[in-house]
Amino acid sequence: MKSLVLLAGCGLGDGSCIEEVILTYLALDKYNWSYQPVAHAMEAPSINHISEEPEEKRNILVESARIGRGTIQELDCVNPDDFDCLLIPGGIGLLSNYRNNESVRKLVLSFAEQGKPIATMCAGIDFLRCLLGESLLQTECETLSANGFCCDRSRNVYYTPAFRKAKNLCEVQEGIDCMIQALDSCNKNS
Amino acid sequence: MKSLVLLAGCGLGDGSCIEEVILTYLALDKYNWSYQPVAHAMEAPSINHISEEPEEKRNILVESARIGRGTIQELDCVNPDDFDCLLIPGGIGLLSNYRNNESVRKLVLSFAEQGKPIATMCAGIDFLRCLLGESLLQTECETLSANGFCCDRSRNVYYTPAFRKAKNLCEVQEGIDCMIQALDSCNKNS
Repeated sequence: MKSLVLLAGCGLGDGSCIEEVILTYLALDKYNWSYQPVAHAMEAPSINHISEEPEEKRNILVESARIGRGTIQELDCVNPDDFDCLLIPGGIGLLSNYRNNESVRKLVLSFAEQGKPIATMCAGIDFLRCLLGESLLQTECETLSANGFCCDRSRNVYYTPAFRKAKNLCEVQEGIDCMIQALDSCNKNS
Repeated sequence: MKSLVLLAGCGLGDGSCIEEVILTYLALDKYNWSYQPVAHAMEAPSINHISEEPEEKRNILVESARIGRGTIQELDCVNPDDFDCLLIPGGIGLLSNYRNNESVRKLVLSFAEQGKPIATMCAGIDFLRCLLGESLLQTECETLSANGFCCDRSRNVYYTPAFRKAKNLCEVQEGIDCMIQALDSCNKNS
């Protein structure tokens, strides 16, 4: 599987949740998927992760490169048709930076409209609901435990709660791992 | 085990290697250790992780908070006597920010002089050699594979190569996991 990983910066408060990104990469390496981290080159206020106060503006693409595995690309420079799956780790930056961004919206819709799988976690579901509709996985999410995942098969959207429910990193890792494993199996059987 | 995790910023190029930090936390959660991330409040140039060029100065403690699990402390505010073990994930920031820093030096030496275990990886071994002597684990490191670890029992220093040898995140995770497992077993048998 060739996957795109959408990053929104480097840090829970103003970007992507770092733990979720790294544990997503860990699962992708385990199931031997290739992955291309992407982010959008735009300025947004940074958040001090001690005081939680907004500070100077930073470039989302440049900050995302800290968790970009040395290969990050501007999302306008990749062709979604070259990828089988879109992965969206959580983080408040998804909403604060990308909710109303047209490039990001086009990217997500290009996967959704072709029925290609989109897998997300934590705040990623709120972000996807902004783009794909509020009803998305509404009931399933509430009853889910951190080390599990759910899937809307009609829309091909996968979700694990990660830090929304997890008490520790092992639970986050288990939830992401079983979600990627399921996607991997689906792909091999299709 | 109560451990301190020494962070030097948020990013391989000017701080701690993010992947190594998160996979260290994952192992600590798995073996049920408590951990306290610490960093030093000091200004240092940031490195743009796309261009690799130096940019504006940032505060190491504030940036480390992005991978500080919501509990980071200034290292001068913790008492090393309260902790059983010191963990030092890699990253170039260890050398560029901390090599000549007296607070950091005092912290590391307080563990070394009491014979408490210190576990490190990747660039962390170069950093420890600056403080504890160039001969530290010199031969062992060369022959080690990414998913293994070595230990200088006389000095109680543990080391896994991580990204110095690893081809993917799974190998980094295996190396860190078996190192923490060994430390955990040593502690339970002592």
